[in-house]
Order: sequence, then structure tokens, then C-alpha cells
Amino acid sequence: MQKITIVGSGLVGSLLSIYLAKRGHQVNVYERRADLRMNRISAGRSINLALSDRGWRGLAAIGIEHEIRKVAIPMNGRMMHSLDGKLTYQAYGKSGQAINSVSRGGLNCVLMDIAEQHGVKIHFQQRCTGIDLKTATAYFEDDASIKSEVQSDRIFATDGAFSAGRLQMQLSTDQFQYSQSYLEHGYKELTIPPTKDGEYAMDPNALHIWPRSAYMMIALPNLDKSFTCTLFFPHKGEPSFESLNTKEKTMTFFNTMFADAVPMMPTLKEDYANNPSSSLVTVRCFPWRFSDKVLLLGDAAHAIVPFYGQGMNCGFEDCVVLSELMDLHGENWEIIFSECERLRKPDADAIAELALTNFIEMRDKVGQESFLLQKQIEAWFSEKHPDKWTPLYTMVSYSPQIRYSEALREGKKQEGIMQQIMLMPDIKDQWNSSAVENRILELLQ
Amino acid sequence: MQKITIVGSGLVGSLLSIYLAKRGHQVNVYERRADLRMNRISAGRSINLALSDRGWRGLAAIGIEHEIRKVAIPMNGRMMHSLDGKLTYQAYGKSGQAINSVSRGGLNCVLMDIAEQHGVKIHFQQRCTGIDLKTATAYFEDDASIKSEVQSDRIFATDGAFSAGRLQMQLSTDQFQYSQSYLEHGYKELTIPPTKDGEYAMDPNALHIWPRSAYMMIALPNLDKSFTCTLFFPHKGEPSFESLNTKEKTMTFFNTMFADAVPMMPTLKEDYANNPSSSLVTVRCFPWRFSDKVLLLGDAAHAIVPFYGQGMNCGFEDCVVLSELMDLHGENWEIIFSECERLRKPDADAIAELALTNFIEMRDKVGQESFLLQKQIEAWFSEKHPDKWTPLYTMVSYSPQIRYSEALREGKKQEGIMQQIMLMPDIKDQWNSSAVENRILELLQ
Repeated sequence: MQKITIVGSGLVGSLLSIYLAKRGHQVNVYERRADLRMNRISAGRSINLALSDRGWRGLAAIGIEHEIRKVAIPMNGRMMHSLDGKLTYQAYGKSGQAINSVSRGGLNCVLMDIAEQHGVKIHFQQRCTGIDLKTATAYFEDDASIKSEVQSDRIFATDGAFSAGRLQMQLSTDQFQYSQSYLEHGYKELTIPPTKDGEYAMDPNALHIWPRSAYMMIALPNLDKSFTCTLFFPHKGEPSFESLNTKEKTMTFFNTMFADAVPMMPTLKEDYANNPSSSLVTVRCFPWRFSDKVLLLGDAAHAIVPFYGQGMNCGFEDCVVLSELMDLHGENWEIIFSECERLRKPDADAIAELALTNFIEMRDKVGQESFLLQKQIEAWFSEKHPDKWTPLYTMVSYSPQIRYSEALREGKKQEGIMQQIMLMPDIKDQWNSSAVENRILELLQ
Repeated sequence: MQKITIVGSGLVGSLLSIYLAKRGHQVNVYERRADLRMNRISAGRSINLALSDRGWRGLAAIGIEHEIRKVAIPMNGRMMHSLDGKLTYQAYGKSGQAINSVSRGGLNCVLMDIAEQHGVKIHFQQRCTGIDLKTATAYFEDDASIKSEVQSDRIFATDGAFSAGRLQMQLSTDQFQYSQSYLEHGYKELTIPPTKDGEYAMDPNALHIWPRSAYMMIALPNLDKSFTCTLFFPHKGEPSFESLNTKEKTMTFFNTMFADAVPMMPTLKEDYANNPSSSLVTVRCFPWRFSDKVLLLGDAAHAIVPFYGQGMNCGFEDCVVLSELMDLHGENWEIIFSECERLRKPDADAIAELALTNFIEMRDKVGQESFLLQKQIEAWFSEKHPDKWTPLYTMVSYSPQIRYSEALREGKKQEGIMQQIMLMPDIKDQWNSSAVENRILELLQ
């Protein structure tokens, strides 16, 4: 039995604590915030998120997949809203394949409940002020400025994009590779409440996108029949969060650019003025561990932008891989930690890149006919030759057996082929012809 | 008159303090280390460095160019030492153009003396523990753990690659772009003492290089007729600092790879074992300022690897540019700071890239005949058409009127042209023919 400290009781920290407690370890989790369950406070992050197969795999291992399915809303495709309000639908995969809108806070509460049922002790309002890496001693300060230190066998830092554990590695180890890279876009959450009849204002089984090239708005359904909208928008320039600085400018802008959404957003003016705008960061670092003492996991090791809906899924997959390594290597923590960072680093880098690329796809390409046609051809070809072509979105979202790094590599190869296919004469009319099929088969050789 | 705090009394901080004091400001410098001048301690950094024209320009502004010239050793070119001890010389520019080996510590002492003569107060053994960016208040702790705080009108953080000022911006501002990127190579300093007759063991007017593809050793002359050698070598792998872990292995390795140098290095065995190996980092960040209160300059804003010999030169150029902006904008510090980061960021990025590229040139390409021929052609063409072609090395080292970013852009264009020239038939024999001259002229169109 190991004495284990986990810094951060977010989604990844909570899931990890259950994995470790189930193996018989003594697990203490220290969380900077107050107990979500007592206060129903915002975790300062998005209200809902997209759970897909890598995430389900992480939950299945602790037997709560079915419980969470009940509170998840499947989204089978994207619904694009054009400037003039025209709707275009694009399926995310084959029939039955969906990503799932779940409440971040709700899922986090369930995980903390289960963790405590397994004997995990969660200490709230404990800010990590530093870690002595060599002795695996973590230092905390509570909201009354009372300090404490906790020595343990291992420390897992799952304390997110601004990890105190990672900062310690940056400050006190040599050759720590580190970058934090911000997008020029930030985001602001808005809301579409239920209709007067208490129904969803739009199709709840889709992820709604208003692609506007340089920016976009999206909406995901909630169980209470509302949608949470997120406006991804430049911090500065024209238009931007900075430039839309009066209620009048805001309404004029929304009425022009998101005309079909405005009637569904009765509190838009107030929400836009009152809700904060937040930043979008990609964090890359290496190593992820200090000897066999400290390991970074989840956003602490690899924060990514949200455009592939994979942040939590990737963090849960970290836990699955770690669990497999514990099966393989018993108590050899040096090997477990080094294999974990070796295996996961390329996959984390891959999903970081995919997430950045997908922003351009979502805000711009999904509004283009040629792009939609390309995806249609890929889906059609994949249906005919499932052994020869798995669409990138399917690899990332529904194929946990395919590593992110493999998906990225394969996706680039596919993109190269499709660029040639799209140049074929009359591709619009002959998109599902045997000529196209044979040409793809040829290019795949 | 402004009350100004400078964090760090290294080369850039000391020079900057003189610039500011000469303008009548009240300048206090806080330095983490003890006074170099009292202790003659190592600054923990390289013993000598290469001063070139951007650096001279920074010194000329305070009238000490001539004084420093007296203690500088001109190096007019590179002397390559092949495996079998054969020497090949390559001039760094036209006759009379040279980079200059100067003592880092010596130059720093001179600058601190001058600073104090101008009324600058330097406080030693004061570690910066944090900065309140909004109020320009810096917090210090001395070697007896006595704390102090200093509020001023502006703070300049010139505290190097691991800047406390920059860390504060990373920790307490949103959207701070930051990366620290380490090479797989580190370095270790070694020495070639004067001969028994008290003479230089090699030509002192050259920078000596032992290019060995994956690694290299270099040597720069000192005034005491010794050379300081630097081995740039992988941290790990085979061979590496990690693998050369006994005196026997070290000597066998040096006798094989640096055979002609070994007889000149009587203390090699001990130096190798006793001297530390250090890391090589490139730091990029943005912004460099917090409103009109705090500005990062020198390595704090843009630490680079040493392979173009431009680290100090670039930092001194920061001071020159800042000084010009103070001439232009008087006491409008918002404009001075914002213009400084806007102007210098692309140049800092450019020299960072050039420095990384030059490592490959120094450790590998300078050992290849075709590369030396290419440089010979460039020098010949440039001599004939000085208005049409300034070699990259000359732009970077001897042409302070050309911005680093311009030099990088022009250098890439030149490289593209030369790659075509090197493919010309019999280029080895007709390298200085009119056919080659005309082809270059054509490609320059």
C-alpha cells in the first residue's frame, strides 16, 4: 500500500483517486476550491463538455459508464447555422455514433462521491504552494492561511493548466521543456434557455455551430433543456471582445452575425456584459515526472484548446494507461512513471495539434460546401471500405484503440489523398462514382 | 527624473543603468550575487564572449569603446581542427573585420565602475522574490533573509534567462506567451594554458573549432595567453556527458576525437571531472512589458544559445533601441515600452533562430568542403558586388544598421540562391567564373 497525494480534485484527479483507491492505496486529494457538492459553485470552467469513447473507457473501468449514460445527451452530428439562418447537418460518424454532452460539475460530483465511497479523503480549500520533489512533500495553505505539509510515497499533480506541480518542476529542475501558448481568441459563455413550453429551442441531439470564418459560436444541450452557448472570439481587433464594448454594439453585432440565435437568447445583452471572457491556452512540457516521486497528468501535463472536445477524454485516457502500467509493473514506480510519460507524450502532442487544427475546421471550413462534400466522400468511402479508411473524427472520438498520434498521422495521409480527389473534374456530380472509389484505392496503395 | 529599479547587474543591466543615469534618472540596481569586483567570483557563466559591432555600438554610446578595445582580442576568422589535426581557416568577413574575445567578468566590472561613477547605486546579494507589477514594487531578500521592498516609477528586469521579473509576468498576467526550450546538448568549460614559454598555444586571432558533426569543441583566446575551451556535447546518449563518466573513458575519447588539442590541455582530466556541465536554453516570451511599469530586456526577454556569439550584443542593442526611443518620446513611457517590445521582438526571434541554426553550421558544416566552397563563392561575389550581396555572417556581426530580422530574411534568400549555384556543373573548378557570377546576378533578380 502506497501513501499517495493527489493535487487537484477536478475530473482527472477524482477519477485517478478512484483507480488508486481501488488498488488498495491510501489516497489523499487536496483541492484548491471549496467542495463543489456543497456549494454548487462554478468550477470556473465550461458548464458542459463532450464525452466520447476514450472518456467512456475511463469511466467503464470503475463501473459508472451506465450511470453517466443516463445523464448524457448524445450529439450525433454538427448543425451548422449559416448567416441567413439556413441549417446544414453533418453526421459525426456512422449511425449510432455520438459524442455526449455532460455537465462538468455533475460528473465531477459523481466522481468525488465514488472516490469517498472508496476511502479517498478529499481536503478542500487547500492551495498547493510548492512541492519538494525529492522527498515527495507537498505544501498547502488553506483559506485561513494555515499551512500544512504532507509527505507521501508519490504525488500526482492533476491540478490543471496552471498546475502548481508543473510550476515546481519548471522552477527547480534543469532542462524542463515548457511552453504556454495562447490563442488570439478567447471565449465567453452565453445561454439559450428552454422555450416557453419548456422544450429545447433547437435539436438537442446536435452540436450547433455558427461558423463565421474568423470566429464562431457553438451550443451544447443541457439536461434542463437549455443550451450553453460559447462564443469563441478574438480578444482584440475588429470585431473582438475589446471592440464590442457597449450593449448597443453587442446587439447590432449579434443581430447581424447570429440573427437566428438572437430570438432564442432573451438574456443575451446581460449575459454578454456580465459573463467573463476567458483565454485559451495550449501547454506543452517534458518531462512529466520527477524520478518515481511526482507525476503530472491531465491538463497539468498537456492543456489543450477545446475544439476537438478531447481535453477530459485525453485526461481520462492518461488514467487508463497509468492503470495498465500498474498492472504490468506492480510496484516498480520508476518504470510506471517513465513508461507513462514516454507513451503519453506523443499522444498528448498529437491531440494538442488536432485540437488547434479543428478550430479552423469548426469556425471556417464547416461553412464551406467543398469541405462538406469532402467529408461526405470520406464517409461514403469508409462505409464501403471500413478496413481501408476510418475518418479522422471517428479515429479520435470513437476509436480508443487507435492512439491520438496514429490518428494524426493517418489523418494527414487521408487529407493528402482527399486534396487530390477534390481536384477531379466534376467531383460534385461524380462524388460517389466508381472512378472516385478507384482513385482513392489507387492513392491508398 | 524617474526613480528606476533595475533587477540584475549583469552586462545588460549595468549598461542600461549607465544609459539611464546619464539621462538624470535615479537608478538603483539589485543584484542576486555578491560584488564581482570584490570577490572575483565566477558569474556562473562563460569566461569570455564574442563582442561584435552591435555590442560596440552599445559601448560607444557611453564612450568606453576605446578602453574596451584595448582588452579585446580580435578574431578574424574560424580555425577548423579536423580529426587528423589539419587546420583550415575561414575568414569571418573582409580584411579588418573581426569579432572580439573579451572577458565577461572584466567587462562587467568596468561597466559597474562606470555606473557607480554616474551615481547608480548597486545593491548586492539581493534576490528578487517577486514584483507587484501594477505598482512597480519589487521585493528582495538578502543573504541573511532580510526582506525589503522598493517602489519606483519603472522597473527594468535584466536578470537573465531565469528572470524573476519574467516569472512574475508568467504567474500573474493572462495570455503571457512563454516557452523555454532546451537543447539536447550542454556545455563544459575546459582550458588551454599558455605554453611553457608563456605564449599562446595556438593562433590567438581566430576562434578555434573542432567540428565533430554531432558535437564540437571551440576555443577563444584570453589576455593571459590561455584559451578557454567549451565542449558542446549531448547530455545523454553515446557519447555524452553521461557516458564519459570515468577519467579513462574521457581521455580515450579526447585522444581519439580531439587528438591535436590534448597535448595543449595538461589539466584536461581534472578540468573535465571537476567543471560542471551546464544547459543551453532558448527563451521566448511576449509581451515584454507590463503597462508602463515593468520592462524585460536582454536574456530575461530573449535568452538564446551562444552559437552566433550574439547574446550580449543583442542585449546591448536592446539598450541602444530603448535609448533612441527615449530620445523620441521623452517621458511617454507607455509608448517607449510598447515601441521597444514591438521593435525588438521580431529581431530577438530572428537571432534566436540564427543562433540555433549556427550550431549545426559550427559543429558540422564547417567541416565540409562544399560548405567552405559555398562561403568562398559568397565572399568572392560580395567583394565584386558589395551593393548586391552582404554575407549573412557580416550582416549579423558587422552591420548593426541591418536588423536581425532583415538579416535572417536576406540570409534565407541567399541560401536558396547558393543551393542552386552549388548544383552547377564543375562548380569546384569554375567557382570564380563569370558563369557563376552571371547566374547569381540572374537569380538575384
